[in-house]
Amino acid sequence: MLGKSITNLMQALKQLPAIGPKSAQRMALCLLLEHNHTTAKKIITNLTSAVNNVRQCSCCQMLTEDAVCVICNDPRRDSRCICIVSSPADCIAIEESSIYKGKYFILTANLSPIDGIGPEELGIDNLLIQIENNCVSEIILATSTTPEGEATAYYLSEQLKKYKLNISRLAQGIPRGGELEYIDSDTLAHALDTRKQFI
Amino acid sequence: MLGKSITNLMQALKQLPAIGPKSAQRMALCLLLEHNHTTAKKIITNLTSAVNNVRQCSCCQMLTEDAVCVICNDPRRDSRCICIVSSPADCIAIEESSIYKGKYFILTANLSPIDGIGPEELGIDNLLIQIENNCVSEIILATSTTPEGEATAYYLSEQLKKYKLNISRLAQGIPRGGELEYIDSDTLAHALDTRKQFI
Repeated sequence: MLGKSITNLMQALKQLPAIGPKSAQRMALCLLLEHNHTTAKKIITNLTSAVNNVRQCSCCQMLTEDAVCVICNDPRRDSRCICIVSSPADCIAIEESSIYKGKYFILTANLSPIDGIGPEELGIDNLLIQIENNCVSEIILATSTTPEGEATAYYLSEQLKKYKLNISRLAQGIPRGGELEYIDSDTLAHALDTRKQFI
Repeated sequence: MLGKSITNLMQALKQLPAIGPKSAQRMALCLLLEHNHTTAKKIITNLTSAVNNVRQCSCCQMLTEDAVCVICNDPRRDSRCICIVSSPADCIAIEESSIYKGKYFILTANLSPIDGIGPEELGIDNLLIQIENNCVSEIILATSTTPEGEATAYYLSEQLKKYKLNISRLAQGIPRGGELEYIDSDTLAHALDTRKQFI
């Protein structure tokens, strides 16, 4: 019963991350009500401008409006340490914790053979160039603890072995402030297994 | 740390229904990765075309590409019965149940004094014109069972009293196929209170 314009818009919105057919329909119908046309136009203008102006940093592959991003350009950041993450959002999450003072490298994707994403799709050429040129001594593998993230971390550690770097992975266990009864059993089992000496 | 283009895009996306700052950030960062530029451009094109081509039906206020929507244009639909809903999505939901053969009227909003939405913002001028011109004999108040939806239904019933119409409201109770133990207590109390003679 909806026309071609609305159906096409719903199809396009459905490709956004975590948006299913019902949410895409809700967004499309909401944007097309006359009193929401300003919002729709704002999205068109800002998305057009962002697609034209934003690129990936030539060093770390973070999204930026310049050739090199603010972190890579910051002389106070320690370029001997690189934290490898799977997406720009993961890089922002670590930055928000305000503890890390090294540099980053953002992968194009996680390994996922089921989706046809093999080692070539990780986009690590720039990473290898940086390790060779910048006296890098430490690598933090901060990919997710999903099967894809774990496989990616393992693959990278194998690839980087020859450079004789200090390679670490983020600690895994019970989240800080977490109530034990609400922690899933896989996490609990792992936390028990890798428990640390207290005193 | 993100540039102006990305921040502006995130601000615009945050205005979509049910999208908070975290989801808006995720969408923006995802769309700006080079391999997703096709999706971003598809959204720009389809949203531009939809905003330009889609308008509200001059009879029922449903979204349509024509001056009058397919339902209002369908001579097989009973124009003596009007089902009043609060949004185009609600109209689609009722159409999907395939049981209703009358016409619709889509309100611009639900009454919500807290958001500054008073009776004038409901946009019922077209509804009154139709009731007066089309020998309407029945009105179904299909607004939601939220406080705003209930207030809107009550206000409309008061406004329509003078036309001597048969005014009904959707039945309220336990959803079909619902397991009793998972039904909220307000719904259960109401269902008990308005229980129906069985045999």
